[in-house]
Amino acid sequence: MLKPLFQYIDQNQNHFVQRLGDWVAIQSDSGDPAMWGQIDRLLNMTAERIREMGGSVEMADVGTHQLPSGQTVPLPPIVLAAFVRDPEKATLCIYGHVDVQPARREDGWNTDPFTLTEISGNLYGRGTTDNKGPVLAWLHAIETYKATKQEVPVNVKLIIEGMEEVGSHGLLELTRRMNDSFFSDVDFIVISDNVWTSNTPALTYGTRGSSYFLVEVDGPKQDLHSGVFGGSIHEPMSDLISLLGSLIDHTGKILVPGVTDAVAPLMDVERKLYENINFSLEELKNTAGVQHFLQNTKEEVLMARWRYPSLSIHGIQGAFSEPGIKTVIPRRVTGKFSIRHVPDMVPSDVERKVKEHLEQVFASRKSPNILRVIATVGAKPWVADLKDPQYVAGQKAIRDVFGVEPELVREGSTIPIAQNFQEETGKSVMMLPIGAHDDGEHSQNEKISRFNYIEGTKLFVAYIHELSQLKGQS
Amino acid sequence: MLKPLFQYIDQNQNHFVQRLGDWVAIQSDSGDPAMWGQIDRLLNMTAERIREMGGSVEMADVGTHQLPSGQTVPLPPIVLAAFVRDPEKATLCIYGHVDVQPARREDGWNTDPFTLTEISGNLYGRGTTDNKGPVLAWLHAIETYKATKQEVPVNVKLIIEGMEEVGSHGLLELTRRMNDSFFSDVDFIVISDNVWTSNTPALTYGTRGSSYFLVEVDGPKQDLHSGVFGGSIHEPMSDLISLLGSLIDHTGKILVPGVTDAVAPLMDVERKLYENINFSLEELKNTAGVQHFLQNTKEEVLMARWRYPSLSIHGIQGAFSEPGIKTVIPRRVTGKFSIRHVPDMVPSDVERKVKEHLEQVFASRKSPNILRVIATVGAKPWVADLKDPQYVAGQKAIRDVFGVEPELVREGSTIPIAQNFQEETGKSVMMLPIGAHDDGEHSQNEKISRFNYIEGTKLFVAYIHELSQLKGQS
Repeated sequence: MLKPLFQYIDQNQNHFVQRLGDWVAIQSDSGDPAMWGQIDRLLNMTAERIREMGGSVEMADVGTHQLPSGQTVPLPPIVLAAFVRDPEKATLCIYGHVDVQPARREDGWNTDPFTLTEISGNLYGRGTTDNKGPVLAWLHAIETYKATKQEVPVNVKLIIEGMEEVGSHGLLELTRRMNDSFFSDVDFIVISDNVWTSNTPALTYGTRGSSYFLVEVDGPKQDLHSGVFGGSIHEPMSDLISLLGSLIDHTGKILVPGVTDAVAPLMDVERKLYENINFSLEELKNTAGVQHFLQNTKEEVLMARWRYPSLSIHGIQGAFSEPGIKTVIPRRVTGKFSIRHVPDMVPSDVERKVKEHLEQVFASRKSPNILRVIATVGAKPWVADLKDPQYVAGQKAIRDVFGVEPELVREGSTIPIAQNFQEETGKSVMMLPIGAHDDGEHSQNEKISRFNYIEGTKLFVAYIHELSQLKGQS
Repeated sequence: MLKPLFQYIDQNQNHFVQRLGDWVAIQSDSGDPAMWGQIDRLLNMTAERIREMGGSVEMADVGTHQLPSGQTVPLPPIVLAAFVRDPEKATLCIYGHVDVQPARREDGWNTDPFTLTEISGNLYGRGTTDNKGPVLAWLHAIETYKATKQEVPVNVKLIIEGMEEVGSHGLLELTRRMNDSFFSDVDFIVISDNVWTSNTPALTYGTRGSSYFLVEVDGPKQDLHSGVFGGSIHEPMSDLISLLGSLIDHTGKILVPGVTDAVAPLMDVERKLYENINFSLEELKNTAGVQHFLQNTKEEVLMARWRYPSLSIHGIQGAFSEPGIKTVIPRRVTGKFSIRHVPDMVPSDVERKVKEHLEQVFASRKSPNILRVIATVGAKPWVADLKDPQYVAGQKAIRDVFGVEPELVREGSTIPIAQNFQEETGKSVMMLPIGAHDDGEHSQNEKISRFNYIEGTKLFVAYIHELSQLKGQS
């Protein structure tokens, strides 16, 4: 049943690659408001393509945005699309984005970042894997059903935005506003905006959350000379180093009392998932360029990155940070660190405990300086239930296309979109990547391989099929 | 006997101020090699003035200097001068410099920095107090003896340089070279290149030394994302914060084992010196803008700044130091701190102990990162014997001119020149300032008051006189 669909995809692969080339050529860099017109253009092209395939499209207005300059500019719309709504079918909502990170050849690209270039089976260009390639693969999956005269066996909806790389302005508000309309009949939300962990196809069922902390210690009214004043005053840097030093020990353990109490216990069934992941510690050592990790086994390292919290100290603002030497006592310094949350940690609870801890350490120093702790961001962690029907369908689809057992993985970094959709809509959310671990999102020489792009299109076709087979279970 | 001398100074004060104006107008900024010609010009004027008064002058060639650009340029000469050598008299060698720090009106000056401007009894201009005013005061003191037909009662030598503000290039080598010639008959070296601690005239008998440390922790081969890698790797920042946190406690105590063992014990006679110092803790609190000091009493605060060692953490290079937030794990970070040495600490000994301590703390963390500790600078502390005849003469001269008991003070900062002269020549060295505590050396609106400039000239006349009276004791 899938065979004619896969055949169509194989036969049309050059056409699909060519369309990716058309999209890559549009410099839809959302980081530069001067390029937002290109985003509008690409969103309109996307809408036109959907309409050609018989879908209905609404270009949702999400208002304006204030630039750092103070200027207020209209945001690009968000494409909301739907293909025939049959109440007998499950409804799948696909999320993607058509904007990209900045890229300039001078940054170290081997090819022009906005000219799709195929070298040894890899398709190089900005946005090829993040996220133009996967968005096109979804559109081509629908095209494949249409072109082979097969009915798309689920109702398909699409949300395509153009502001993802700068924080998805307007999307959260739109999600809330459309909860009782656009989202009301949605059963499953699928996101293909990350990459596999290794060379094995993967499903992603969790991401860590994060809170970012600014710890400011404000002291003398001006910078002082360390020869003239050293030894007589409470230096803000000494206070700050002591505060930062109280956060974490040399094993990576977070020392803030109570912060890790809520971490969900590791069950046997979850532990087994890690054993099945095809992942080389040696390769990761090479990638990161480290001698060894805080943990000894593959499973422990993966769990440390995905299902346990972490604390990283990023730097200090206000102290002497230039090359050379300077004998300054900085008057005000701000330490910056962040904590990655995992279920069932509650960011607001963590933030309160961190503040209390830092205030207590500071009080014990009897310093006349002023401490201010500010917590920002505060994204919640996300984890999905692997027994959910779409995860079952996703695993089957991977077996259909690649003939291997999929890896069930999580992301250590924070991708608020999955958590936001799950929390706001209450729907099942899955991340179904088709990019490879070495695609280089956000980096120089971003690529997607022709194999991943084309087999990924087959994966989406198969996933739609498997999802329709599971309707009774949803 | 001093009366006619003082009269001459009072009668000629406008002339002395005018000459200071001539000198201030010469932009002898040693920080800018393009201005070194102005330094040559001023050194030649100085030499000419000395010759007019009957002194002999040698313009000592001190070779070349390599600029950061790689260009090698000739250094301005150093003026070596001498007035009649009578083997029956003591020989005083006066050190000073005619170069200045940079200054631009746009930096926040209220007047043109290179136009001497008198406002409410203060003479504003770059170099007025550091060090053109005091150098001229010495020349005017000699002039005063000559003009009033009194024999200068000591042999006077002068060393006037033009590179002090950039590190006295060539002076140390010249001192070594001239040890058996120019310095052989010198009894006392006097330096007037600092300021009083309060409004009370002072003698300065000590400065702290310093060593500057760079602590580099080198980790992953590139910066990493804290979401992707946080919790699994030994972060260089965690190592560094722990290293820096092991250096000093919240009371200001240096925690590096053995580093303070060599600090000279406080004797009763020294303790009493601090009681006599007219110094307001409240005023210093206002100047520094702090609520309170690490110590409670005036004496303790002064001792902490002058006669005890201190450790200040200046900053971190390589970490995130900009405003805003960034979730980076920096690959390589370098902490910077310095220790101020006091007698009888030995910088090389301190540097060895600091390295050993940091290596031990680092080893206990079992981190795969690489630690490098580099110690730079390493100037020795300096302290003079207050029973030395020139300190006795200096105190008498202050009583003669100002009618008050002088304050016997030290500097917390490092002034290598005094230590270098004492160590290289083995001669008695004294710092005899005439500038006030609020003169603003190196700062905007640098000034010397007309009072300090003119009474300071009298002080030098009186000092020469008192020194001659003590000849038998030297």
